[in-house]
Amino acid sequence: MAHISIIGTGNMGQAIAAVAGRGGHTVTLIGKDDADARLGDVVVLAVPYPALADIVASRGAELAGRIVVDITNPVDFATFDSLTVAADGSAAAELAAALPESRVLKAFNTNFAGTLAAGTVGALTTTVLIAGDDADAKTTLAGIVAAGGLKAIDAGSLRRARELEALGFLQITLAAGEKISWTGGFGVIA
Amino acid sequence: MAHISIIGTGNMGQAIAAVAGRGGHTVTLIGKDDADARLGDVVVLAVPYPALADIVASRGAELAGRIVVDITNPVDFATFDSLTVAADGSAAAELAAALPESRVLKAFNTNFAGTLAAGTVGALTTTVLIAGDDADAKTTLAGIVAAGGLKAIDAGSLRRARELEALGFLQITLAAGEKISWTGGFGVIA
Repeated sequence: MAHISIIGTGNMGQAIAAVAGRGGHTVTLIGKDDADARLGDVVVLAVPYPALADIVASRGAELAGRIVVDITNPVDFATFDSLTVAADGSAAAELAAALPESRVLKAFNTNFAGTLAAGTVGALTTTVLIAGDDADAKTTLAGIVAAGGLKAIDAGSLRRARELEALGFLQITLAAGEKISWTGGFGVIA
Repeated sequence: MAHISIIGTGNMGQAIAAVAGRGGHTVTLIGKDDADARLGDVVVLAVPYPALADIVASRGAELAGRIVVDITNPVDFATFDSLTVAADGSAAAELAAALPESRVLKAFNTNFAGTLAAGTVGALTTTVLIAGDDADAKTTLAGIVAAGGLKAIDAGSLRRARELEALGFLQITLAAGEKISWTGGFGVIA
């Protein structure tokens, strides 16, 4: 069983903690400003994009060697018309560059919290898309997701985080524009 | 009833022709090298991305004033690791710049041909995401899609074509990697 730490106690952090807990793993939910709590093998950064830099600054050395999961959607909320990261980059790529000793994955950013908590999106089982350059790390996270009753798909290398963030952004704009609900969104039909 | 011309007679052209035909519209399916066929009010360019430039060159003047629908996914098939358009742009934005007198929409690029032909993706009705800057043009296309038995969602301005193309690319990589089938993909749960 893995020890999974989730930094960030908002809707997404709580929902991911519930998924991880269903599989019988040890789960620690940590406030983003609590720099003292010990971290597990898998650390999910369930915080808004702007908070990643603080975590790198305060926790960077401690994150070395661990699987670090970036769930952010770096939406420009001033314009709601683009992401704030470089057009050919991603929040996950930035994080991987800032944490060269960590095994950074992108995941959960294409899932609304409600679909993680319920385990379903409409009549479909919720699917978590995972991108990253470390195959073992992806397998570990996919196992945690599957043990929590969801589906996991390996979406490729960390470069695919760019497309996952585009998908996450699009899904947020559709919900904000009331084209879909915050409990709906994109489901994956295999 | 609209007169809908579809340039390109491949799987996507045929599937979109079938959708449009179900609504009782006049549909003309035109070979991409047939420069003589008269065009309708709505022109779907059901061709691979590299063929768009030829159509602009041969048909540009004639496309003025018409609704022009770009369905392309400009995937770099040499690397299968990125799109070939500018990172902050899209094929649709390029097309709109090349056809300033046309009402350019992005649509159908997030739907595999099989899901358009069947009208379903898994147990869900197939949803066509439409982006564009001309609200009337989007309403016209959404009406054609709905009359053909599919769902349509207005995905926002033509700038959202960037995200639609990212989604289309991601979906193609998932199918090529056998994570999903070519009759599956992303379904939309409202």
